Order: sequence, then structure tokens, then C-alpha cells
Amino acid sequence: MNEAQTDIVLSLDELFSLAHKVLTRHGVSDDHARAIARVIVQGQRDECHSHGIYRLIGCVRSVKSGKVDPRAVPTLRDVAPGVLAVDAQRGFSLLAFETGLPVLAEKARAQGIAAMAINHCFHFSALWPEVEAIAAQGLVGLAMNPSHSWVAPAGGTQPVFGTNPIAFAWPRAQSHPFVFDFATSAIARGDIELHAREGKPIPSHWAIDRSGQPTTDARAALDGAMQTFGGHKGSALAAMVELLAGALIGDLTSSESQAFDDGAGAAPYHGELVLALDPARFLGADLAAGEARAERLFAAVTGQGARLPSQRRFEARARSERDGVRIAPALYRDVMALLD
Amino acid sequence: MNEAQTDIVLSLDELFSLAHKVLTRHGVSDDHARAIARVIVQGQRDECHSHGIYRLIGCVRSVKSGKVDPRAVPTLRDVAPGVLAVDAQRGFSLLAFETGLPVLAEKARAQGIAAMAINHCFHFSALWPEVEAIAAQGLVGLAMNPSHSWVAPAGGTQPVFGTNPIAFAWPRAQSHPFVFDFATSAIARGDIELHAREGKPIPSHWAIDRSGQPTTDARAALDGAMQTFGGHKGSALAAMVELLAGALIGDLTSSESQAFDDGAGAAPYHGELVLALDPARFLGADLAAGEARAERLFAAVTGQGARLPSQRRFEARARSERDGVRIAPALYRDVMALLD
Repeated sequence: MNEAQTDIVLSLDELFSLAHKVLTRHGVSDDHARAIARVIVQGQRDECHSHGIYRLIGCVRSVKSGKVDPRAVPTLRDVAPGVLAVDAQRGFSLLAFETGLPVLAEKARAQGIAAMAINHCFHFSALWPEVEAIAAQGLVGLAMNPSHSWVAPAGGTQPVFGTNPIAFAWPRAQSHPFVFDFATSAIARGDIELHAREGKPIPSHWAIDRSGQPTTDARAALDGAMQTFGGHKGSALAAMVELLAGALIGDLTSSESQAFDDGAGAAPYHGELVLALDPARFLGADLAAGEARAERLFAAVTGQGARLPSQRRFEARARSERDGVRIAPALYRDVMALLD
Repeated sequence: MNEAQTDIVLSLDELFSLAHKVLTRHGVSDDHARAIARVIVQGQRDECHSHGIYRLIGCVRSVKSGKVDPRAVPTLRDVAPGVLAVDAQRGFSLLAFETGLPVLAEKARAQGIAAMAINHCFHFSALWPEVEAIAAQGLVGLAMNPSHSWVAPAGGTQPVFGTNPIAFAWPRAQSHPFVFDFATSAIARGDIELHAREGKPIPSHWAIDRSGQPTTDARAALDGAMQTFGGHKGSALAAMVELLAGALIGDLTSSESQAFDDGAGAAPYHGELVLALDPARFLGADLAAGEARAERLFAAVTGQGARLPSQRRFEARARSERDGVRIAPALYRDVMALLD
């Protein structure tokens, strides 16, 4: 390793160990530290820099805020034949997801479709590792969650919605799953934060400032309101996420999560809704034909030179698995300082 | 009624009778004619002109094409505890939806979440009447379907996806439900068709021509490829609709539907996926608190002067219920000609 101006290069195992060490140093239980380190490695590996090692800083800040219970043990509740609830008990969301996943998968296989509500969790991670984990079980996954009220509804100027990501995965036998995971805001909050850290301007359609005017200043955007993607359609989806992953599961909306944080700067505290659908139950004897139909769809996209979602991420994954991950020196120093 | 240049005004009952008469005159069974006339009245009533009386012309063309069975009787199949399939038997989709809805609702109440696949149907209608019907049962509704391959994926130039609408409804005790229904294309196909009929130019982000260039010519757009809304995010959602409401339910993708039509100009022939979630099962004793939380979200949107989706439609509904619906004379003449 090299402390100069060139990037630091770590193997995936080295990064896992570093993340685990930072987390446990700050009182995070071994189970939580493993769950968190796994997704931080996945984020850095896939070159989703706003969801990689950078997130360790926020995790530690969340723990220091005193809001998060870094040793919480998630509990399961059978809500209905098709519905499972996992109470994260004010811990981070990831261990709750891992704890509930086998039961969600079992319910999806039994019922054809099932839902998992994750409640009372602190959430900082991307959703694609979760829907990919569902797809790895041969199931279709759909996940969504609110965040903090940073995003104005279409036609409005005041923040109401979170960045409210929606993620989807379709399992594929011979390759990575078809996966997307996008914020219903014009951009992920983390991307604006990274621009602010680096003093870079942002495109004017990402956000408005406190006075309701479009801005290219990342800090003014963080103080104002982000915009949804796709105008009123993105705004409608953002509202759906508040309803399904907030009101429906008895958990906080983005506004309520923001109020709960009360300026502490912890990760958003809210719920998450995860659906799993079993193609084997839907299709029965026609499963292979359904899978082949999906492959023809993908071929029609890639065959004309267009990309499938996540294709860049899978290419980065192959590079990182071969060559390790690269970390900017300033970020690496900030992370190492968490071990002091 | 008045055959001059001013609009024709009909009561909702008069419009229902006219639609029913046109349909049965062309061999549509009474059950199908009632189901279709109901949604045509709903479309015209809510001033969704591309889904109102205009659609009668397409319905009759579909019947005349010989592809649709206008007297088909839908059949139900219990696929899994949480999954129902309705085989429309090559009839129009609406009677299949109405036939399956009570069973879908029963499954959602029993399981917490349930899915209904509608297979082998000809589809020409908006999805909001369906998700509103689900919300009228106190359930959350989510529906989607492919159409014909008119839409290019993000980064591509060749049509692969349909206009692939997604509709959602959240039940509200004291008012119309929260409802959205939007095409994942930049605009509904029917809107481009209406522009072409009227010789009006279209915005350049709606579509590309056969050579892959943006166009403002509605006819060139109909011959080229439509664009998705919201760039790669809309494109990802369009792919999800092909997978969930095509491959997962053993029914045609938009490309396959187009190939099946083979130039006959019938309504798209494909499937539809409808999900229902029961807030009473998810929330139990906390149902009222969850409903109140949703109302606070809506108030935060409307309180800053922004609109909820469908608000214009509900305003139109109130006008039409009071004053009747207005129909352009040229369209009225085209519809009356179907009775000759």
C-alpha cells in the first residue's frame, strides 16, 4: 500500500478486513460488521463509489450519533402467509435483510409471491446487493425504501420525498442477473455529497436551492431540494415508495425519518419493502420457456448496441475481482483515521 | 344532439348505451360490451381522450381483424396460494379483469399480498380503472402490461419495448384514491396517434424516426421508435414490465405481440400482471395510523401547491358527472359510422 498521490489498491479480502476492523473498533457487533463490510466491498468492487468504502464514514458517524444500536439483534414476525416483518431493533438494515431473506424466499416459493417489511432500521446502502441476493435464490426481487425528505414533488419547491430508490432483479441461469437500482430523485444523494466534497458543480436539473431556483452549486443543492427524475412520473414513483415502504409497513416516511434524526447526521431511520416472486411457481412446466423469452428480450437490447442496466457495474466487478479495488488517497486517509 | 361544428354532449348513461350498441352491433357479447363500455365511459368522463370513445374505433377494428374472440368466456386457474391466472381466451382484457378481481381480492386478504396474471388477452385500455377498482376494495393495487414493440431502449435506436404502463392506487377513506398510471414511454401511443390524426407536430423527445433521429412528425414517429421517459431509468422500468407481465406470466413480450398481430392492426395481444396488497393485513391494529401517515404525505404535497397524480382527472370527473361529456364532431361521426 502506498500513501502518496496515487490510488491505494486493496484486494477484496483486504477491504473486507479493513471495513470490519473500522466497524468493530466503533462498537459494531461482529454480525453487523460482517453484513456491512460485505456490501461495502460489493459497492467498491462494482465501482459504485458513493456506496463503497466512503460509506464507512457515515456508518461510524451514525454509531457516534447514539441513534443506532450497533449490536441490535433483528427479530422476525410472521404477519400473514405472504408477509414477513423483520424488526431491525434500531440497528443497521443489512443484518435484518440477511436474517429475513431465507424466510422471504421460503414464503415466495410456498405462495408464489411474498413481501418482507424491514422495520426500524438505519439504512445507508444500495438496494442492488439485496435484489441480487434474491435473484441468487432463483427468485425475482423488487425492493424500495424512503430516506430523508430531500426531494421536492413535481410542481413543488419544498422537500417531501426521499431519494426513494427502487431496485429490481431477474435471475439468469447463465450470467449475472438483470438488475437495476435507481433513485427516483434525479441523482443519488451520495453523488451530490461527493460533488460537494470535491467542490465540483452539478447539472442544473438535479436540484433547486432554498429559494426554489435551479442550482449548479452542490452545497446549495444539499440545503435546498433535489428534483425527481422524469418529472411527474418520477414524482409519482417517489410517492409510491413512501406509501409502500412507509405507510403500508407501519414505518416512517422520509419526512418523519428526517425529523427523527433531528440534525444528528445519522443514516436515515425508516423501513424497507422487499418483494420476492417465484418464476417456478408462476410458470410451472413453462419455466424454461419463460426464461428463454427473457433472454430474447435481453438479446434484443444488447444486439443493437444498447446496454442492460448494471452492465458497467458487472464489468467493474470483473476488473476488481482480478485487480483489486482502487481507493483515492484522501478518502483512504479519512477511513484510516477512523482507526485512530 | 347536434351534428354541427360544436362538440356533441352526452350524459354518461347515453355514452354507455352508445358504446354498448356499437360493440354488440359488431358481435361483441353483452358481458364484454358492458365491461368495455364501462371503461370507455370512465376514460371519456375523466377527459383521458385517448382512452375514451376514440377507443371504440380500435375495438371494432380488432374485432374485424378476426384475431379477437368477441364472445370469449374467461377462465380462472389457481396457480399458487398467492397467485391467480385468468385466461382471457383471446378475448378483450377487461372482462377477464372483472372476472378475476374478486378472487384476487380474496387472495390478497388471505395472504397479505397476491398476484393476478391475465393471459391471452387483447388490451387497449388504461390501467387506472383497474387499480381504482382494487382500491375500491380497500386494497393497494399495482398493474402493468407490455403492448407492441414501439419503444427503443435507452442507448438504442430499434423498438423493443411496448409503451408498458405502470399503474398504482392507494385507497383513501375520505376521497378518491391516490392513483397514477403512466406509460414508461415518453408519452402514450394514443397521444401520438391523436397528433397524427390532427396533423399536429410532437415534441422532439417523444420519438425518433426510422433513421434513429429525433422527429417532430407524428407519422414519422409512428413509423420509427418512441423513446422511454426518464432516460435509462424509464428504460429499466420498461424492461421490468416485459419481464413481470410477459416472461414471468408465460405470455408474450411486446415484440412477440407485434409479430402475432402481423400487421392486422388489432389491439396488442399479451398478458397483464396485477398485484394487490392488503393494508389491513400488513398493519393490523396500526391500520388507522398507516392511513393517517399517508394522508400527511398527501397534505405535504398539496399544501405547497403541487398536484397529486390524477387530480386533473378527478376534477374532470366531477365536471362530466354534472354536465356530461363532450365529444368532437369528427370523432362522433366516425363512431356513429360504426353503426351503419
